[in-house]
Amino acid sequence: MRVDVVAVGTELLLGQIVDTNSAWIGEHLAAHGFDSLSQVKVGDNLKRVETAFRRTLADADAVIVCGGLGPTHDDLTRDAIAAVMGAELRLDASVAQRIREMFRSRGRHMPENNLRQAMVPVGATVIPQTRGTAPGLICPVSVDGANKVLYAVPGVPHEMKEMLERAVLPDLHARSGDSAVILNRIMRTWGESESGLNERLDGIIGELEVLGNPTLAFLASGWDGLKVRLTAKAPTAQAATALLDEWAGRVEAIVGQQVFGYDDDTMESVVLQLLRERGLTLGLAESVTGGLVSARLTGIAGASDVLRGSIVSYASDVKFDLLEVTEGPVVSEAAAAEMAIGVRHVLGSDVGLALTGVAGPTEQDGMPVGTLCIGLAFGDAVRTTTLRVPGQREQMRQFSVITALDFLRRTILTSES
Amino acid sequence: MRVDVVAVGTELLLGQIVDTNSAWIGEHLAAHGFDSLSQVKVGDNLKRVETAFRRTLADADAVIVCGGLGPTHDDLTRDAIAAVMGAELRLDASVAQRIREMFRSRGRHMPENNLRQAMVPVGATVIPQTRGTAPGLICPVSVDGANKVLYAVPGVPHEMKEMLERAVLPDLHARSGDSAVILNRIMRTWGESESGLNERLDGIIGELEVLGNPTLAFLASGWDGLKVRLTAKAPTAQAATALLDEWAGRVEAIVGQQVFGYDDDTMESVVLQLLRERGLTLGLAESVTGGLVSARLTGIAGASDVLRGSIVSYASDVKFDLLEVTEGPVVSEAAAAEMAIGVRHVLGSDVGLALTGVAGPTEQDGMPVGTLCIGLAFGDAVRTTTLRVPGQREQMRQFSVITALDFLRRTILTSES
Repeated sequence: MRVDVVAVGTELLLGQIVDTNSAWIGEHLAAHGFDSLSQVKVGDNLKRVETAFRRTLADADAVIVCGGLGPTHDDLTRDAIAAVMGAELRLDASVAQRIREMFRSRGRHMPENNLRQAMVPVGATVIPQTRGTAPGLICPVSVDGANKVLYAVPGVPHEMKEMLERAVLPDLHARSGDSAVILNRIMRTWGESESGLNERLDGIIGELEVLGNPTLAFLASGWDGLKVRLTAKAPTAQAATALLDEWAGRVEAIVGQQVFGYDDDTMESVVLQLLRERGLTLGLAESVTGGLVSARLTGIAGASDVLRGSIVSYASDVKFDLLEVTEGPVVSEAAAAEMAIGVRHVLGSDVGLALTGVAGPTEQDGMPVGTLCIGLAFGDAVRTTTLRVPGQREQMRQFSVITALDFLRRTILTSES
Repeated sequence: MRVDVVAVGTELLLGQIVDTNSAWIGEHLAAHGFDSLSQVKVGDNLKRVETAFRRTLADADAVIVCGGLGPTHDDLTRDAIAAVMGAELRLDASVAQRIREMFRSRGRHMPENNLRQAMVPVGATVIPQTRGTAPGLICPVSVDGANKVLYAVPGVPHEMKEMLERAVLPDLHARSGDSAVILNRIMRTWGESESGLNERLDGIIGELEVLGNPTLAFLASGWDGLKVRLTAKAPTAQAATALLDEWAGRVEAIVGQQVFGYDDDTMESVVLQLLRERGLTLGLAESVTGGLVSARLTGIAGASDVLRGSIVSYASDVKFDLLEVTEGPVVSEAAAAEMAIGVRHVLGSDVGLALTGVAGPTEQDGMPVGTLCIGLAFGDAVRTTTLRVPGQREQMRQFSVITALDFLRRTILTSES
């Protein structure tokens, strides 16, 4: 089943907002076994929105439209749908009631134009809003005798996502006449390139290509690691889960410790959880990353029970004076080791993790751009390593974050095996 | 002149990569006075790519195509263009020579399929590559007797941007028959909402709407601030610059210190430069932001001559022990003040900037989510302030970064006026 996407909004064409919605929708359509072969952005102009809907409906079996459902005169998705359906717009009393209540419950006056959001093309079904004030719409459209469907969802990403998962994807499955359950499992990996992983999983990939179910896909996600996604289709959720368990087990048997987590896990959440389970606290000493390791860890609510803090020792003499690093070149494993020991002492943490390196644009201490030295004071030992990290300044720094956290993760796991 | 965009790549439809290119192109087309009314993503399928090119060329005067210029069998942009032009592809000897030299200069073997990148449709003009191996193409196309043009540029963002500015935009100006110079000036602001700024600039906006030149646009850029863009059109660059100077001056006379920089300035670069010019070093004490202030400042090459470091005192007793904050509630102006003084002492910096607050998801010390207390030890004085910052955890933290840096910026400027 082909499901194309139209994103509506002049701000998208002007680059004031990057359209991330259609990429998210495309990823989820693929994970549910639907094809998305064309995705279009169009501005807030009734004629052009209507044309975009007609063309997309001509090519695809279903169309998902994001945006243009707001209350202002620029929000034209409803009008364009009515034109395409050849139906008139009517006020839906229950939607209007819900919008009024939402304003009342927040103690705010409702501008009358908000009732535009309660206008529904005759023949369309409302997807009730649970956030925001704009409901979604499921609109059956006949195109040259073929029964097709157009879904309208809000452009606000979290409203769009919620409505897609709650209503649009289930409706697509129902229409596709396929009662099978499709489930995904994402294995998050770090430490090997896509081609390297591809080579190691060559046998499994070959078997799956013959079987056709589950399917395996690689999703490169930059400094969030490389995802391996298994998608299984089965008559029941139980059967799909069993398939996923079996093949995920086989993938892991080959890829091993490169799998650091599943689905919504991140390297940060995994490392925090590993430390938390062992009752260990962490202190960071950052130079090349300038606080990024700490910033990414504290992006997770609840980090405070593990992370005591970070000393960003950007100036060399802060390393010497505060962390008691021996004076000398600061991009070295020796300096990284002393930083890790020093920060454990200064912050009173169980574990000390230190990063020093060269983000560029120029070399430092005779070490080339991309050099990363990691020091880890863990238990009675201090471990160090030196790597070459790819990329320009920002990319090099972000790769350094996940590389250092992965070094800590593997050390914890190895120390117990 | 209408210039639409086609982004080519299955990975864009699958959401493995978000198409940021077309947004960037849309922003720059608008800044150069061109309309972009539709932007399409299409996968690596020859028939569909060709159809996308034909449809877009039917609607627009010119089309910019990103991606699909690589060396593999999946890279089909050249073939689709040849089909649309009704021309054959021929090896361009000078492009082939340049590709061979690029490999040789890197001491690498050139896989033969790289010569696919030297195939040029007869009638097209090559945009020489300066980065990467893929050249761009300028392809005249006749559509129903109308002379139109299709530009092909690589999908790698920095290669695309360089080629667009060097070759595509100048060529569009030449074709538009408009020899006028269009120049932009972006004023970066912080501290007021779009509607607030709109209200204060109401008079100027009214005048400009009558004049039609320069034009003024607001570009909301989240935690990078709100941009005010002036676009001036004149017979010469000198005259356009004079127009920009005049109107930027009038905007600034009203908006004043809310303008923190111009064009590519960021709050981080501006604050670093202000401190650098005064020979002042900076030390940070971060709690709520967890290292983000430091991470953003060190994202700028050369930050090391100003920033001595940051103490991320995530655990309360790190604040008490290391920064010598008085034991008690840590989300308070008193704590922020002591953190600022403490970090100046510990890191030996001229200026101490401290942030403490509540990022959520739950309140802390009886203070609600969104509370931000800033402390600034500057010269002989310690200044503090408390604000309510909007947004969920990540947004709240990022807004806190720019808010605190702006507090430092204004303090420096005010102390001298």
